[in-house]
Amino acid sequence: MAIHYPNGKKFIEHQALAKAKKVKQTTYGNRGMTLEEDLNITNKYYRDHEIALIHKKPTPLQIVNVEYPKRSAAKITEAYFKKPSTTDYNGVYKGKYIDFEAKETQNKTALPMQNFHDHQIEHMRQVKQHNGIAFIIVKFSNVNEVYFLDSEFLLQYWWEQINGGRKSIPKEVFENKGYLIKNSYRPRLDYIQIIDKIYL
Amino acid sequence: MAIHYPNGKKFIEHQALAKAKKVKQTTYGNRGMTLEEDLNITNKYYRDHEIALIHKKPTPLQIVNVEYPKRSAAKITEAYFKKPSTTDYNGVYKGKYIDFEAKETQNKTALPMQNFHDHQIEHMRQVKQHNGIAFIIVKFSNVNEVYFLDSEFLLQYWWEQINGGRKSIPKEVFENKGYLIKNSYRPRLDYIQIIDKIYL
Repeated sequence: MAIHYPNGKKFIEHQALAKAKKVKQTTYGNRGMTLEEDLNITNKYYRDHEIALIHKKPTPLQIVNVEYPKRSAAKITEAYFKKPSTTDYNGVYKGKYIDFEAKETQNKTALPMQNFHDHQIEHMRQVKQHNGIAFIIVKFSNVNEVYFLDSEFLLQYWWEQINGGRKSIPKEVFENKGYLIKNSYRPRLDYIQIIDKIYL
Repeated sequence: MAIHYPNGKKFIEHQALAKAKKVKQTTYGNRGMTLEEDLNITNKYYRDHEIALIHKKPTPLQIVNVEYPKRSAAKITEAYFKKPSTTDYNGVYKGKYIDFEAKETQNKTALPMQNFHDHQIEHMRQVKQHNGIAFIIVKFSNVNEVYFLDSEFLLQYWWEQINGGRKSIPKEVFENKGYLIKNSYRPRLDYIQIIDKIYL
């Protein structure tokens, strides 16, 4: 690590970011960017072209201590990561409320349910209850495949897990019930196309 | 302005902290809670009763340094407040995308435009562009009146300001073009009622 990040501080920022945003710490070789980076670029494309207005929410932190140095910006000197009570992304497309969570896994055969908090699951259930559009975008890193899956299936597997069922969503569910989001140049991961197809 | 806020920077930091920690900086006597506290209680009421799903976004921070103490949670030891690129509140009501910013002012006659960043204004313009519902909720603390105003008027005054016009929205605009949100017990500030009336 010291070789890659000679400046310790930089490396720590990197780690913090990884932790906060749940991206992997591992390198992908030629596989390109993380799912989060791809989605940020995609969302910026959607905003710049006035296609949709989707933002990633800031990471929730519990601020404990702040210093006010003279002639410079307020400095937070003690804070902790909090469990998010909602999903990471939301916004508007054609007047409809859009809400999703993005996850990346190195698992080849399934998405482990431990990727989600119960608050996030409950949040997605409520989005559907209010006729919003809720889904997950999942990247299987080993095969570099990104899927779009309606939250209905996530909720179903969540309940099965609570009732003693399996603790992951099989990749076949993504293949058969979800939609492969093809990598392209612009936009990077065109998930709005899928929203058009299945909800509108 | 220099008279009211001798240290421009500090004032902004002060605001940021108030926002982050959700504590009051000013005492209001018997006037009760801050607008933010009232809105948090209102939004919780809406969620608990499955009326609407509206959340306040976390305060955006730039994380610079994180420590990983053994056997305890990651501790952020250096971070700074960032300017938000969107509004503070968003969510879904009857499938529609809802987006708003809440401001409190001690000014008796107008809401100063300095309460908003250009990114927030641009964000609200885009929400309307995508057929979302965008508005502001403003509390005039001195008279304890809370108004709902469609973002159309905010955008209009913003452009006038940029073109050399006045730097605030007169209280009469809230009284004549907006809607008074009455304080009640449950929900505290029933702004959904107004959404029903004017948009749906």
